[in-house]
Amino acid sequence: MATFDFSLIQDDLQRVEHKLHELAAVDFPPLAGILGQLLKSGGKRLRPALVLLSADFYGATRDETISIAAAVETLHTATLVHDDLIDNSLLRRGNPTLNTNWPSGVVVLVGDYLFGKSAELASRARSIDMGELFARTVATICDGEVRSMLNGSPWAITREQYDYRIYAKTASLFATCTEAGAIVAGAPEGERALLREYGRSLGMAFQITDDILDFVGNEKTLGKPVGSDLRQGTVTLPALCYFESHPDDPALRELSSGAVREDAFDDLIDRIRASGAIAAAYKDAHRFSLQAKEALSTLPQGRARRVLLDLADFVVDRRT
Amino acid sequence: MATFDFSLIQDDLQRVEHKLHELAAVDFPPLAGILGQLLKSGGKRLRPALVLLSADFYGATRDETISIAAAVETLHTATLVHDDLIDNSLLRRGNPTLNTNWPSGVVVLVGDYLFGKSAELASRARSIDMGELFARTVATICDGEVRSMLNGSPWAITREQYDYRIYAKTASLFATCTEAGAIVAGAPEGERALLREYGRSLGMAFQITDDILDFVGNEKTLGKPVGSDLRQGTVTLPALCYFESHPDDPALRELSSGAVREDAFDDLIDRIRASGAIAAAYKDAHRFSLQAKEALSTLPQGRARRVLLDLADFVVDRRT
Repeated sequence: MATFDFSLIQDDLQRVEHKLHELAAVDFPPLAGILGQLLKSGGKRLRPALVLLSADFYGATRDETISIAAAVETLHTATLVHDDLIDNSLLRRGNPTLNTNWPSGVVVLVGDYLFGKSAELASRARSIDMGELFARTVATICDGEVRSMLNGSPWAITREQYDYRIYAKTASLFATCTEAGAIVAGAPEGERALLREYGRSLGMAFQITDDILDFVGNEKTLGKPVGSDLRQGTVTLPALCYFESHPDDPALRELSSGAVREDAFDDLIDRIRASGAIAAAYKDAHRFSLQAKEALSTLPQGRARRVLLDLADFVVDRRT
Repeated sequence: MATFDFSLIQDDLQRVEHKLHELAAVDFPPLAGILGQLLKSGGKRLRPALVLLSADFYGATRDETISIAAAVETLHTATLVHDDLIDNSLLRRGNPTLNTNWPSGVVVLVGDYLFGKSAELASRARSIDMGELFARTVATICDGEVRSMLNGSPWAITREQYDYRIYAKTASLFATCTEAGAIVAGAPEGERALLREYGRSLGMAFQITDDILDFVGNEKTLGKPVGSDLRQGTVTLPALCYFESHPDDPALRELSSGAVREDAFDDLIDRIRASGAIAAAYKDAHRFSLQAKEALSTLPQGRARRVLLDLADFVVDRRT
């Protein structure tokens, strides 16, 4: 299994961690408690790492780079806070979600607060391009989410709609991370576009793999029932591939009519797992992973590039 | 009663209106319907007017000025969408609120969407200062809201806490409107600070007057019961002034213990209305109105200044 090694940026990741701790250290204990729980809960810090690694091609880390890395993690956290509220999720990274302990009004406002703070951190780079990039990213993420939610026939999703949804949900922020790293470090225009393309493809591969793991992972490592996306009404790539190759499966009609019993879901999920749909979905994930690596081919060789190449393998090869 | 005349900026306000219509015209009917309802519902457009009037001191209106004016209205709308959800409000400007017709998840996401779009509109000015100003404003508004909501003893609010709350809730955005107009039109540094000070003081006067009208307005023009802030647990300036001058009123102890019956509220609200608290609160509103006017004293004379001076009278003299 592929691994990746963040030792190259370990000190800088520590500085990001410190910046997130500072953000949580407000002078109002109830808010400080909530922010501490959200911002210090670890996680992979994949998005800050993408900022730092992309900037690493172009010299020593600037203070502004650390602010941007903290900004993307804060933005990501803001979206998770609202997502967990909307999905009524109870656990996140093994901890109770904010919405299990607080009224929804608090959760809405804490999410908004984090959106505001992420914009403030991003503005510290004092770059017009960075400001535009951040604003566009927030707008894209929200556009994708609101369209998914308002879609009246979620079972009839097309491949284009799926691609847009995962771009908006995941890949747009990955692309912003790598482009932001390039901007803050002063990369030439062409390399900035290549790093953005790397981030976008990496994000697509990452999200497709997430969607596959929801079907093939086991309940223990997933921390949720197998096929929970489908059970909750979200059609992802494995289901899409399955229905494309099995247009006559009666489940499709049952889903459209909204009359699916829990054990029918169990059977359908088994059929999807046993079909070629998982392999077909993995083919797509690998295609995006390859695109990500190709985007790096003309970038300066060195440790940052090696880590990013490894990461493109890791995101599809991981088991959790 | 003071009036104000927006004819000076009527054409530009039309352009702002057009920009808001464009924002609502997305290619996805359910979302377009929601955005249309929110963005075309009129309202006073006071915040866009502040941007336009502040910019008017420094020459012809630029396209960027229109974008900024639309951005502040969109940001204001985003906060109203989340506020109405949190307060479970049923009506806004005489129309049913979004949360009366849609599940809370949609309302959260539509608010987020509008935050994102307002940031995108603001970034069109391609100004570092504007980006920082916008980000800071969103952070301030959310900081004030989340602190209010998490405050465990709302009845024990101090004057400083009240001032911060209304600054964060209202005056910070007013100040941003006038400062943003100055930035986008290229005002000299000193005049930019004066216009910001005008906006801040105007916003404080505006919000204090709103809080007074909640006590002295009549139920019909208010569209809600007299004293509804207090009934919902929000202590505003009239109540604060009353409790300062009547520290032995038994209601204070009852409120703290949370055991107040509806008719006890009626009596308390009558006592506040009959006391000198309303006059004391108006004294403060007028003080801020005067500060706003003083901030304009060294700015170029002309129609824009006259309208802003009138506006400073209007916000305290209005009856609704």
